[in-house]
Order: sequence, then structure tokens, then C-alpha cells
Amino acid sequence: MRSAIVIDPTSATAIHVQIYESWRKGILAGRFRRGERMPSTRELSASLGVARGTVAQAYEQLLAEGYLQTQRGAGTFVCGELPDTLGQPLRVSPTISTASMDFRLSKYAERLDEDFRYAPQPAGFILFSRWVPDTDAFPVALWRKSMARALHAPASTLLNYARDPQGYEPLRQEVAAYLSRSRAVQCTAEQVVILNGSQQALDFCARLLAEPGDSVAFENPGYLGTRRIFTACGLQLQPARVDEEGIVIGDLHKQSRLVYVTPSHQYPTGVAMSLQRRLELLAWARKHRAVIIEDDYDSEYRYSGPPLPALQGMANDAPVVYCGSFSKVMFPSLRIGYVVLPPQLVTPFNRAKWIADRHTPIVEQIALTDFLSEGHLERHIRRMRKLYGKRRQVLVDALQKQFDEDVQIYGDAAGMHVMARFDDKAVYARALRNKVQIVNASDLYLGKAPGNEYLFGFSSVSERVIREGIKRLAK
Amino acid sequence: MRSAIVIDPTSATAIHVQIYESWRKGILAGRFRRGERMPSTRELSASLGVARGTVAQAYEQLLAEGYLQTQRGAGTFVCGELPDTLGQPLRVSPTISTASMDFRLSKYAERLDEDFRYAPQPAGFILFSRWVPDTDAFPVALWRKSMARALHAPASTLLNYARDPQGYEPLRQEVAAYLSRSRAVQCTAEQVVILNGSQQALDFCARLLAEPGDSVAFENPGYLGTRRIFTACGLQLQPARVDEEGIVIGDLHKQSRLVYVTPSHQYPTGVAMSLQRRLELLAWARKHRAVIIEDDYDSEYRYSGPPLPALQGMANDAPVVYCGSFSKVMFPSLRIGYVVLPPQLVTPFNRAKWIADRHTPIVEQIALTDFLSEGHLERHIRRMRKLYGKRRQVLVDALQKQFDEDVQIYGDAAGMHVMARFDDKAVYARALRNKVQIVNASDLYLGKAPGNEYLFGFSSVSERVIREGIKRLAK
Repeated sequence: MRSAIVIDPTSATAIHVQIYESWRKGILAGRFRRGERMPSTRELSASLGVARGTVAQAYEQLLAEGYLQTQRGAGTFVCGELPDTLGQPLRVSPTISTASMDFRLSKYAERLDEDFRYAPQPAGFILFSRWVPDTDAFPVALWRKSMARALHAPASTLLNYARDPQGYEPLRQEVAAYLSRSRAVQCTAEQVVILNGSQQALDFCARLLAEPGDSVAFENPGYLGTRRIFTACGLQLQPARVDEEGIVIGDLHKQSRLVYVTPSHQYPTGVAMSLQRRLELLAWARKHRAVIIEDDYDSEYRYSGPPLPALQGMANDAPVVYCGSFSKVMFPSLRIGYVVLPPQLVTPFNRAKWIADRHTPIVEQIALTDFLSEGHLERHIRRMRKLYGKRRQVLVDALQKQFDEDVQIYGDAAGMHVMARFDDKAVYARALRNKVQIVNASDLYLGKAPGNEYLFGFSSVSERVIREGIKRLAK
Repeated sequence: MRSAIVIDPTSATAIHVQIYESWRKGILAGRFRRGERMPSTRELSASLGVARGTVAQAYEQLLAEGYLQTQRGAGTFVCGELPDTLGQPLRVSPTISTASMDFRLSKYAERLDEDFRYAPQPAGFILFSRWVPDTDAFPVALWRKSMARALHAPASTLLNYARDPQGYEPLRQEVAAYLSRSRAVQCTAEQVVILNGSQQALDFCARLLAEPGDSVAFENPGYLGTRRIFTACGLQLQPARVDEEGIVIGDLHKQSRLVYVTPSHQYPTGVAMSLQRRLELLAWARKHRAVIIEDDYDSEYRYSGPPLPALQGMANDAPVVYCGSFSKVMFPSLRIGYVVLPPQLVTPFNRAKWIADRHTPIVEQIALTDFLSEGHLERHIRRMRKLYGKRRQVLVDALQKQFDEDVQIYGDAAGMHVMARFDDKAVYARALRNKVQIVNASDLYLGKAPGNEYLFGFSSVSERVIREGIKRLAK
């Protein structure tokens, strides 16, 4: 019998209890098969280096409790019928004494945000608090087909480490072509690195392009998710105002190594950065050797006017890291995003990816390539643009109908949410009372917020529920 | 026609050339469909704010080159037959002027290892240089079945963010039961965090449990992969010798915050840490408030003697982070590993996972749960233990036959490689000359290496090729 029992002579627990516990847990956990022969007390006492009587004491207890049985002349065996959980794997009860352990966590660990789980949806509430895609409208059957096809790639492709951390080459080709087509991004597949969502992209930017303590210019108000990443990495957020043309260049400090912007659809205000401002920003970054992080998080959903070209594509030598994600245009659990990099940064990002987790899983990358090359993604985006566009219109109409001149609406030209400023100071309290969840934009400001601004996510709320929600808000 | 063209008035390039280039690239990239109507020169000049003659100059060039065609009275259209790449998405040529960009990389970026790609396999070589699973022997059909089944999980599970970064709960249950059964790890599913391979686990340990500049005790010789992670994170490696009982406790410095060990099968020497040494190590870590990182990278493949219980399971309050991976027992591209944590560390790891990449992809986690609960994994491990056990025997026999008393073999009780020390100093040169790739263990030492020690990975080499390789080595 293969034994895996270990005795700790320094423990306060008596040796025979330790032996008893080891066997009992081992039997319950299925490490020893029913009917298997136990070592004799003589054998075990010799191998553990303890007195034979001590082993016998443990065996007696196990026999008494029905874990073991004896057969005359043949020895001792694991019982065929187990007393407790009958072959269920052992759920060790959490009897761990934790008092003696206090771990010294790093500063990074201490800076990590406490809020790492989605709060459960409060019952009966209408939720304008999310801007996630409506996954009910996603063509999951087509995706399953692409995945099934990907699973029939050669076993050597499916099973072995990817040769390269940068990502599946045909996917990088598809992404480069898609971005060139739809976003006027200028790049080749060699500049694309596939990552686990734009979350990982932003973490890499913080780790690779700045030192803890360095200053990073940040749109104010701005995206909380990015703020949390930068803060965890020890970067100092340097707020820069956002006016009707985008980030205010005069607010940038020359020591900032990074400038984080959302030029196509500023989060949360929805401002599209003007051409003039873009040129100024590029010039500023060149002058101060800063890197611009362009987070193009939801600009595929643009409802009026021409598609805005990406900042990245405006100049051949733009010092821009362009971050994109398939979470919004496909679905969140896919965990695939990408960066488009200046050629000099490709190697550092590859190294970081290799050391962080080798590479993004292959099957999803192959399936996504298929989904893109079959044109499914662009068809889906067109359908969603219509669906979300209608919901947006219903939301804007409802807000204007209920609040008339007491509301100003911002950022409704694109995206999955709008920002609204109310004259009425009681809106938030009334929302809570009437079971409507909206997001207070004050949390997105560094420093003092103007107040009374709220975000309304409409992408995953039906038209009927949107109308009902705004009605409740006005009551 | 949706236009995405942008003019940079500050550019050295003439405006009409910029317009020409924008349209040309846009047409080639497929942003504008063939036969689509162009805006008139009057419309475009108004919307861009440039002289009409400038636009006309660009149009003439495009007409001349066959990108556009005119129809009398109807206007100007994108040509049906494109001159250059006929509808292929544009591969922008890398004309980016990089001279003006020099990026300031972080110290982290500078510390990242240069070696981030698998070197191409040299032709005609016999490779003992890898200890990866033999993926030809993996039951890929069963895995495809588990994946196909997982793909039919409800769309809401497949598509939405996981509610919790910790990992799919049924998988954590399976992992806890498997580890309790096979490795005597003491844990509940609540202590398991699913990560993207043990690579991510070690990166998190470095980020969460130590500060850049902190000392970490490291087995010498030790695993280069971990050394690279710790070095990149700025940790100071403090080498500790390995004797026949494992890491030498007397070599540990009391200021080390982490102790990285491979107790079941020390890498690369193959030493199994003795019971006495384990107890001493636990006591040392408690006394100095250090955390032990137990990397149990390949102990499933143990060829003789009883399975060794994990260090983690030896004491209820062990200050141990147990790291495991499915790369060796399943296949490398799966990118799923896990940590088993003291309860106090679960929240910090969850927060780190959430901010690093939200969660590990769902489909693979569901499929792996299925694969485990169906018993496929443990059957596969048993089969592989036989297969690898035979290859190991063939390797050891061949080495002993060819080198007799001039070779000492270490670590052949477990794992996917052995270490061999040769008296003959010309072995490595001969290996290269005779096209045999082996790994020089000197690279795994911090400081001076004894020399003439080499590693032989046997898991993915057939018995015939193993014999041939060792024959070549002795020639």
C-alpha cells in the first residue's frame, strides 16, 4: 500500500492521533481503495520509527469507527463500506489555525482595489449601471461553430505552447486589417500583440512604460478601471480637465511619462477629441517623450456622423499605444484584447507577455480568427449598432420627456452609456427609492466633482425597461 | 460615403498628397466599397476646409492610377477593378520613421529576459532539451469532447464575465479533491485560485508577497523560469545550497521574505526533501515570517516508492503557497494552473487576478472540470507514468551502458528529466558535434557551478531515439 502519511514529532497532537487522522483522511479522500490491505502494525511502526503500541492504538480507533476491518489470519483492510461520506472526496473542514499567520503583503497588494467582485444584482431594480453588451443578442450558435471548428485544428497546434507570445499570427492579421478598415489604425500584424483583454494591456503599459512613483496624466473625469490599475502599480495620477474638444493640453505636466486618453468617446463625458486637439496632443507627447495610451473601448458603436479615425493612425511616428478589446463587440468572458504598438515596443510587450503567462489560450484565438474572417463580427457590430442606437434614442427621448430642460445629456453620439446632468438634486435619492440603479459620475473625478451627473448604461436594457426606469426616476 | 480621412496641416507632406494617400489606402484596405460614389471635389474641399483645386489634384492622381473612375454626369466612383492588390486588405508598409521615437522603458522592462521565444528546433538534432509532455500520447479526442460539451453550457455562463476572479467553482472543487487524493494537500475549494498557468502564480507571488529589492531564498541550482520572474520583479535572489535532503536551512538569510522550493522533486537535481528538512523549513519560515512557495511542477510522475505528500499538507498552519499546473499533466497550451493558499492570502490573490486580467477563460475551465470528474486525467496520468517510466529506464540504462562508472545519474525517481554528471569533460562538445541537444546545468547555478552536469529530458523522446541519442553522445 502506497502510504503518504507523515508524522510531526514536534506537534502538540499525540502521535497515535496523527496516525489515526492521516489514515482516516486518506481513506475518505479515496487515496486508499476499499478492500486494500493495510501495512501491519509491525511494518508501519518500523517505517515511521514509532512504538508498535502507538500504531496499534491508532488502528484500534480506525477499526472501532469502521474505517478498517480485520480478516482472521489475513491482516487488516480498508473497509468495503465506509462510515462517513462513503467514498466522497474529503472536504477538509477549515480547522486551520490562522492566528499564528500574519503575512506581510507588498505595497502593490495593499494598493489593490477592494472591489474585485461584481455586486449581486439587487432584486427588483432596473439597472442602468452597466455598459456591457447584450449577450442575449450575441450569435452564440455561430461562435460555438467557430469554436468547434477551431477544436479540429491539428493536435500539435492545439496542445503545444504557442511558438510566440505575441499571439496567433492569422488573428493578428485579421485584427490589423479590421482596425485599418474600421478605425483607420495604421499597422501591420507585426505591431499587434494579443493579450487577455485590455485589462492586461493597461497593466503592461503601467509596468513597462513607467516606474512606481511616476506621474501619469489622466482625463478628469476618467475611467475608474484604468485608475485602479495605475494606482495599484504605484503611479501618481495627474488629473487633466476635459473640455468640449477633449483633454486640456495646458493641464498636462511635462514630467508625466504616460497620457491616458479615450479620444473617440471620452469616458464618461462622451466628448470626441477634436482634430486640432489631437495634433496638439501628439506634438506635446513627442516634445516631452511621453507615451499616449489610446483606449478605444467602445467606438465601434457610433450612431451618427462618420467613424472617427483613431489617434494612432494620424501620424506615422505617433508615440501611441492603441488598446482595444473584444469584450464589448464580442462578449466579456472571451478575455481577448490587443495592443497596437510602435515597432520599438513590440519586443518589450512580448517579453512581458511571455513572463506573465506565456500566451493567450490558442483555441479562442483560432475561433476568433474564423469568426472575423467569415465576416460574423462586422455583421454583428452592424446589428448591435442598430439595436443599441434604438435603445439610446429611447433613453434620450425618455430623459428629455420626463426632465425637459432640467437635464443635459452628453456623449450620446456613441457607445453604450450616456452622461446626464440634472438640475434636480434629488434624482439619485429618488432613483434608489424607486429601485433604479444609476452611476454617480462623481466617483470618476479626481478631486472635486461638479455633482449631479449620472451615467446611464443602455446597451443591455430593453426599450420597455428603459422607459419604465426613466419614469420611475421622475416620480 | 463615410469618410475617415484626416489632414494634418502641420505635416511636411503636401495636402493633396495627404488626400491622395488617405483615399488610396482606404480603398485598398476595403474601407470603401468598389463602385461606391465619391464625394464631389466641392463637397470634400468644404468638409476638409481646403481649396477645391487641392482636392481636384488628388482626384486626378487617383483617376490616373485607376483607383477612381468617372461616369459622365453621375460623378466619381471607386473603381470596380482595383489596380494594386485587388481588394486585399492593405498591408501598410513599415515606412514608420522610428528615429524620432526613443521610448523610456521601465526598470521592469529592462530586467525582462531577452529569451522570450522557443528557439526553432535545429534540423537533424535529437532533443533531450525539453521536458514537455508527449502531446502525441494525449487523448485529444476526449479533450475535444469535453470542450464540445462545455460549449453547450448556457449562453449566459459562456458569455458574461465570471462573477468571481477566483475561478469556476466546480473546477476548484475538483482541484481540491484531486490534490487531497493524490498529493495529500490539505485544502478546501475556497483556498484554490485558478490562474493562467503556474507562470502567473509565480508572478503574483513576487508582486503580492515581496517588494522590489527584497531578498528571496532560492534553491541553487534552481529553476531558471522562476528566477527570471523574480529577477524581472526586482527581487534579490539569495542562493541556498541543495544537499541530499533538499534546501540547506543554514544557508537561508533571515531577511528573505520568500523561500522558493521544489520539495517533491528538486529542480534540477531531483532530490526529494526529507521529512526532517521539511519540518525545519516550516519552523524556519514561521520564525522569520517568510512565505514558502512550493512549486510542485511534476511530482505526479513518480516512478518508485510511495507518493510524496506535499509540504503544504504537513501542518495546518503552514505558511505555504502551493503552486501547480496542468501544463505537464494535460498539455502546455491549456494555460491553466492554480495556487492553494493560506486563507488570509485568498483575497489578495483574487484582487490581483481581477486587476491583471479579470479571470481565466471560462470554456476551458468547464471542460477541465468535466475531464477531471470523468476520471480522464487520472487515467491519463497513470498511462503517462508507465510511458515516461519506460523512457526513463531506457535513458538510464543507455547512459550506464555507454558511460558505465563515468556517469552519475540524479533525480530519476520522478519527473520528466534526469541530471547526469560526467567524468568526461568533452561530452557537451561531442553532443553538439553529433547533433544531440542537452542542457548544461551550469546555467541553473547562481555563482560557480561544479560543471559537467547536464540535463536529459526524456518525456517526449521515443525509446528508439533515446538509445540513438545516447549512442551518439558516447561516440
